[in-house]
Amino acid sequence: MTEPLALERNRLAVLRDLVERGLEELLPDAGDPPHRLHAAMRYAVLSPGKRIRPILALLSAQQLGCPLADVLPAACALEMIHSASLVLDDLPCMDDADTRRGQPSVHVRYGEDVAVLTGVALLNEAFAVVSRAPHLNDAAKVAMTALLSRTVGTGGLIGGQDKDLRAAPEPTLGFLSQLHHEKTGVLFIAAVEVGALAAGASPGAVQALRVFARELGLAFQAFDDLDDEADLEAGRAGVNMLSVLGRDALRDEAARRLSDAKAALVEGGPELAPLGGYVDLLFRRATA
Amino acid sequence: MTEPLALERNRLAVLRDLVERGLEELLPDAGDPPHRLHAAMRYAVLSPGKRIRPILALLSAQQLGCPLADVLPAACALEMIHSASLVLDDLPCMDDADTRRGQPSVHVRYGEDVAVLTGVALLNEAFAVVSRAPHLNDAAKVAMTALLSRTVGTGGLIGGQDKDLRAAPEPTLGFLSQLHHEKTGVLFIAAVEVGALAAGASPGAVQALRVFARELGLAFQAFDDLDDEADLEAGRAGVNMLSVLGRDALRDEAARRLSDAKAALVEGGPELAPLGGYVDLLFRRATA
Repeated sequence: MTEPLALERNRLAVLRDLVERGLEELLPDAGDPPHRLHAAMRYAVLSPGKRIRPILALLSAQQLGCPLADVLPAACALEMIHSASLVLDDLPCMDDADTRRGQPSVHVRYGEDVAVLTGVALLNEAFAVVSRAPHLNDAAKVAMTALLSRTVGTGGLIGGQDKDLRAAPEPTLGFLSQLHHEKTGVLFIAAVEVGALAAGASPGAVQALRVFARELGLAFQAFDDLDDEADLEAGRAGVNMLSVLGRDALRDEAARRLSDAKAALVEGGPELAPLGGYVDLLFRRATA
Repeated sequence: MTEPLALERNRLAVLRDLVERGLEELLPDAGDPPHRLHAAMRYAVLSPGKRIRPILALLSAQQLGCPLADVLPAACALEMIHSASLVLDDLPCMDDADTRRGQPSVHVRYGEDVAVLTGVALLNEAFAVVSRAPHLNDAAKVAMTALLSRTVGTGGLIGGQDKDLRAAPEPTLGFLSQLHHEKTGVLFIAAVEVGALAAGASPGAVQALRVFARELGLAFQAFDDLDDEADLEAGRAGVNMLSVLGRDALRDEAARRLSDAKAALVEGGPELAPLGGYVDLLFRRATA
């Protein structure tokens, strides 16, 4: 029970629990008005999720010597942004998805109008949380606000969703790579940068973390597309790398990205290298 | 031509022009991808508007000794937030408004999906603009981020829109006052606070400006409801104070709020008192 793997599993469980409790506390209370909107915000965020983005922020910060309590609010802000993007992407005028994380999507459960307000309120709350974070200095808060708004903006999540809406039935690999970078990669990169900013990391560590997160995001998307195989066969999937690359090549692509992600950490030095042990655990379902 | 009124008119025209040019520059270029989304963002913000909120920020800051260039980006962020709220309020699942500022609303012109992304992108860009503002120190940026996110949140614009969606056919005056405070008042108050933060104003000046802006917001809403009379007669208006108070009482209410707004400025001292001269000009149409 004291093998590295058990220790890593344990550390990950601790961090996930910390994120859950952080989100519980930071989200507005459904007992306070507007009740329905607060309930919808909590429903959107607190539904079961892997919490990969906040955990990446916590792991990066802690590995670089920053206390977890200092970075926790900003880490939770990342999950609020992620949840906001899911709520909005699921809307009838977007991907029109009835379920999310195994539950009715927010607009199915609360109505379309409330879903739009919920998505916007969660994005807004992410900035509120960073501005109020008790243990960060003003310079770090401003840098995180700039980082998060760039990540969400028309060169990031919003731009990615716009691309998704305009995607050709048979997109090129180049188009798909850029789409995945904007829809997934940018927020993975922002997660490790949030950790690095909280820790006041060196430029070298930041650069290594960025490469790590970029490759991890692409691996994540590749695994996600592999999981979509059932959807694809049923003709339900949207834009997917599986139909462009085929299953074997996509599996190779995912494995290569994971390996490159770990290599970037080793390049980053002895503080960051141990993070490699968490990569497989974070993707357990995908790599099992 | 050198009477005070002419001078005030001229100063207001200069400030309005400054805001227009600031918005032109700060909004993403429609020549840069994603073209359609950037075009929709510019369409939403650059359509003809009175620019009351950014002008209030500029007037307050300048009156307290802050150079206009220092506060301009944050003033423009207020207009981006205001425009975002209009785009989202107009959506088919909200107020389903086909026109705005005399033009097709964003979802009519660009589609509902693009309209949702446009609203979210404009809100996000407001935070980006504040975080990048070249002449503000980090403490002012953090305070503005906290202020703007509180203003947008479930106790402000978003909460107001949620209330609007749930309004009873014959709401009480108390409900309407709170609704108008959240939908209009909070952003007026935020505007003068942005000016005060940029200028590093004293607590006394901030308090006077807050009262001024609160009364001004309520006056604005009263005039707006008076203007809705034609809509109301045609049965097209939604929640409106006209149907609760009647025309004469609502006109009295508007005049009293304007007068209270000016009185608050006089209480605020000699630096702020001159702002009273701009109140009637800002509402020229309503008070003509």
